[in-house]
Amino acid sequence: MLIVQKFGGSSVADAQRIKRVAGIVADTYKNGNDVVVVLSAPGDMTDDLIEKAAEINPGASRRELDMLLSTGEQQSVALCAMALESIGIPAVSMTGWQAGIQTTGQYGNARIRSINSERLLSELDRKRVILVAGFQGTTSFYDITTIGRGGSDTTAVALAAALKADVCQIFTDVDGVYTADPRIVPEASKLDEITYDEMLELASMGAKVLHNRSVEMARKYSVKLEVRSSFTNKPGTIVKENVKMEETRISGIAKDSDIARIALVGLRDEPGVAFKVFRLMAAQNINVDIILQSIGRENSKDISFTVHKGDLKPAENALLTEKESIGFASLDVSSTLCKVSIVGAGMINSSGVAASMFEALYDANVNIHMISTSEIKVSVLIDDVNAEIAMKAIHRKFFGD
Amino acid sequence: MLIVQKFGGSSVADAQRIKRVAGIVADTYKNGNDVVVVLSAPGDMTDDLIEKAAEINPGASRRELDMLLSTGEQQSVALCAMALESIGIPAVSMTGWQAGIQTTGQYGNARIRSINSERLLSELDRKRVILVAGFQGTTSFYDITTIGRGGSDTTAVALAAALKADVCQIFTDVDGVYTADPRIVPEASKLDEITYDEMLELASMGAKVLHNRSVEMARKYSVKLEVRSSFTNKPGTIVKENVKMEETRISGIAKDSDIARIALVGLRDEPGVAFKVFRLMAAQNINVDIILQSIGRENSKDISFTVHKGDLKPAENALLTEKESIGFASLDVSSTLCKVSIVGAGMINSSGVAASMFEALYDANVNIHMISTSEIKVSVLIDDVNAEIAMKAIHRKFFGD
Repeated sequence: MLIVQKFGGSSVADAQRIKRVAGIVADTYKNGNDVVVVLSAPGDMTDDLIEKAAEINPGASRRELDMLLSTGEQQSVALCAMALESIGIPAVSMTGWQAGIQTTGQYGNARIRSINSERLLSELDRKRVILVAGFQGTTSFYDITTIGRGGSDTTAVALAAALKADVCQIFTDVDGVYTADPRIVPEASKLDEITYDEMLELASMGAKVLHNRSVEMARKYSVKLEVRSSFTNKPGTIVKENVKMEETRISGIAKDSDIARIALVGLRDEPGVAFKVFRLMAAQNINVDIILQSIGRENSKDISFTVHKGDLKPAENALLTEKESIGFASLDVSSTLCKVSIVGAGMINSSGVAASMFEALYDANVNIHMISTSEIKVSVLIDDVNAEIAMKAIHRKFFGD
Repeated sequence: MLIVQKFGGSSVADAQRIKRVAGIVADTYKNGNDVVVVLSAPGDMTDDLIEKAAEINPGASRRELDMLLSTGEQQSVALCAMALESIGIPAVSMTGWQAGIQTTGQYGNARIRSINSERLLSELDRKRVILVAGFQGTTSFYDITTIGRGGSDTTAVALAAALKADVCQIFTDVDGVYTADPRIVPEASKLDEITYDEMLELASMGAKVLHNRSVEMARKYSVKLEVRSSFTNKPGTIVKENVKMEETRISGIAKDSDIARIALVGLRDEPGVAFKVFRLMAAQNINVDIILQSIGRENSKDISFTVHKGDLKPAENALLTEKESIGFASLDVSSTLCKVSIVGAGMINSSGVAASMFEALYDANVNIHMISTSEIKVSVLIDDVNAEIAMKAIHRKFFGD
C-alpha cells in the first residue's frame, strides 16, 4: 500500500516527539508500505516567526512572510528524516518546491495547482520514506508560497491524490471523529466511518478535527482519509464517499459558540432589501451564516443573521452607517448564543430527524431562536448557557445512553 | 555601480540589528547603486540547529543537516527584505536555489559550480534590492547544499563575479585590514589597499578578517573586495590585484599561536626519511606548516616541523608507533611557541626585508627557533611569551612609531 501520513505541529515540537513520529512511520514502512509523510512546523515556531516579522515590519509583504514561514516545515522534515535515519529507515526530506508542488501566486493563501510527482515517484522506487514540508509550494516563477489555513492537511490530501495513495492518514490528538464532543457529552462514541459531506458539515459546525479545505479536496479526488490518534495504535475514523448506513441516521452533533446574531427590525417589504444588507456585509469581508427572514406583513419585515463574534462590531458599524440607505427601524444584537447542529447523510432518506431533534430540545426545555437546515444537517441557534444540556439531550435521543 | 554587500550572523542577530543593516543597504541604494546583499544565519541559529539535530541523531546525514541549516539564512533574507520594505525600498529575498547558485554534491562542503544569473538580473532591472541567502546552493538534482566554512563570504564573491559587480563589500566589526592586530600593537594602522596574495598570507598567518576561500575566488575572478565596518561609515581596506607600492615594503604583521613544534632527533641521513615522516602525517589528516631539516652529519640528521596544537597528540602518537620503521633516536615537542609573520608583495623587489625583521628581533632580544620564507612573507617561530614584544619591535622597524 502507498500511505500518506500527516502529523501536526505539536507532534514535532521537540526531539522526543519527533522520535515518536519516526517510530510510527517506521512501523508503517516495515509493514511493507510505501510511505509519504507530511509535517507541519514545530510547535509554536510559525507564531514566533510571525511575531519576529511584526517587530521588524508590521505591514510586511506576504511574499516575504511566506519566505520566512516556510522555514518551519523545512526544519521539521529535516529533523524527522534524521530521526528515521537513526533507526535505520532510508529517508529523504523535501521542501514544497522539491516535491513539485506548484501553486497559484496568492502568497499566504495560495491554492495548489499541480504536483509534478516525478521526483517523488523515483524516491518511492528507491524504497525511501519521503518527508514533505506541508503548507508550502512555489509559483511558476519559483517564489515560495504558503497555502493558508489547514495547509498541511491540504498538502497531504493533494499528495495522496497525485500519487493515488491508498489512504491519507491525518494524525491528531484524538482517536477519530465522535458523535459529539466527549468533553461535553461523555456518552459520545467514535465513528468508524463517515462521508465527506458529513465531515464537511461537522467541521463547519465546529468539530475541529479536519480542515474543510482538505476534506473538499479529498472528496473531489476520492482520497480515502483516516483521522487517527498519534498516541494509540487503534484504527481511527475513515472518511470516504459512501459509508454503510446501519440504523443510525445521524453521524454527529456539533457545537459552535463563535457566533453572534444581528437582527434588523422594520425593514421595508420591497425587493432588494436583503441584497443591500448582504452586499454590505460582503464588502466588509464578513461571512454570514444562518439567515432568517420573517414573512412580510404591514409593509415591514425583519432579517436576522449570524456572523462570527469577531465580526459583530464591524458589521454593526457598517449597518448603522448605512441605516438610511438600507432603511430599517432598529438593530438588535446578541452574542450569548451558540449553534448546535446534527449531521448525517442518512437524513435525506429519513423523515422526522429534525422533528426528533426539536423534540429532544423541547423535553430539555431549551428554547430555539433560529433554525437552518440542509440536506444532511439541521442547525439550531440556542442560548449558550443551554449548550451542554441540549447536546446531551440530542445525543440521548439519537444514540441512547 | 553594482555593489554586493555581505553581512555576517551577528549583524542580523535581532530586529534592531537587521534594521541597521537595512539602513546601510538603503543608503547605498539611494545613492543610485544596484545592490545585492548576502546574509548569514542570525546569531547563534546555526549552532542551535546543529545541537537540535545532534539530540535527534548525532550521526545525521549531511544532506539532512544542510536541509536543516539552510533555513537560517532564509530567515535572515526574508526579515531583512521586510525591514527594507518598511522604509520604502523595493526588495526581494532569495534562497540559494532561487538565486541560481548551483553547487557540487558534497553536502556540508559543496563548491559553487555556476550561477544562473537570469532571475537576479531581471530583479536588478526592476530596481529591486536583492537579498540572497549566503552559504547555500543546490545540486543539479535540486537538493539543498551548504558550502562550508567562510560560506557567506564566498557566496558574496561568487555573486559579484557572476554579476560583474564593481565591488564586493564585506562588512565586519573592524574597519579594515591593519598592519598588525591593534590589540597587540596599538600603533598599528589601517591599510587603504592590499593585494589578494598579501591578504591570503595574512589570513593564513592568523589575521581572521576574510576567509581564504573567498579571497582566492576574488583573485581568480578579479573581484574587487572591500573590508569595512558596519558600525562606521568610513572606507575600509580594498583588496585587489595591484596596489600602489609607496615606500612601505610590507603590508602587515600577523601572529598565530595555534602552533606546536615537533622535533625528530637522530634520523638516519638517507633518502626517504622525510617522505616516511610526512606520509604518516598525511595519513592522519594532519596539516604540517613550517618544516626545517638540519644538514646531515655523522650519518644523522634532525627534522623539525609545526602542526596545529590540536594535532600535536595524534602526531606524537603516530610517530612513536612508527619509531622503528622511521628510525629516529628521540622526539621532542613544544607547544609554548608562536609564529610571527610579515607579509608584503613589495618584498620580492626589495632586499633586506627579512634582515630588517631579524634585526628588530635581535634588538628586542627575542630568540628565533625556526624561519620560513616565501616570495611575499617571512615567518619566524619564537617563544609565545615574546610575541607581543616581537610584534611591537617589528612594527616599529617597518612603520615607525
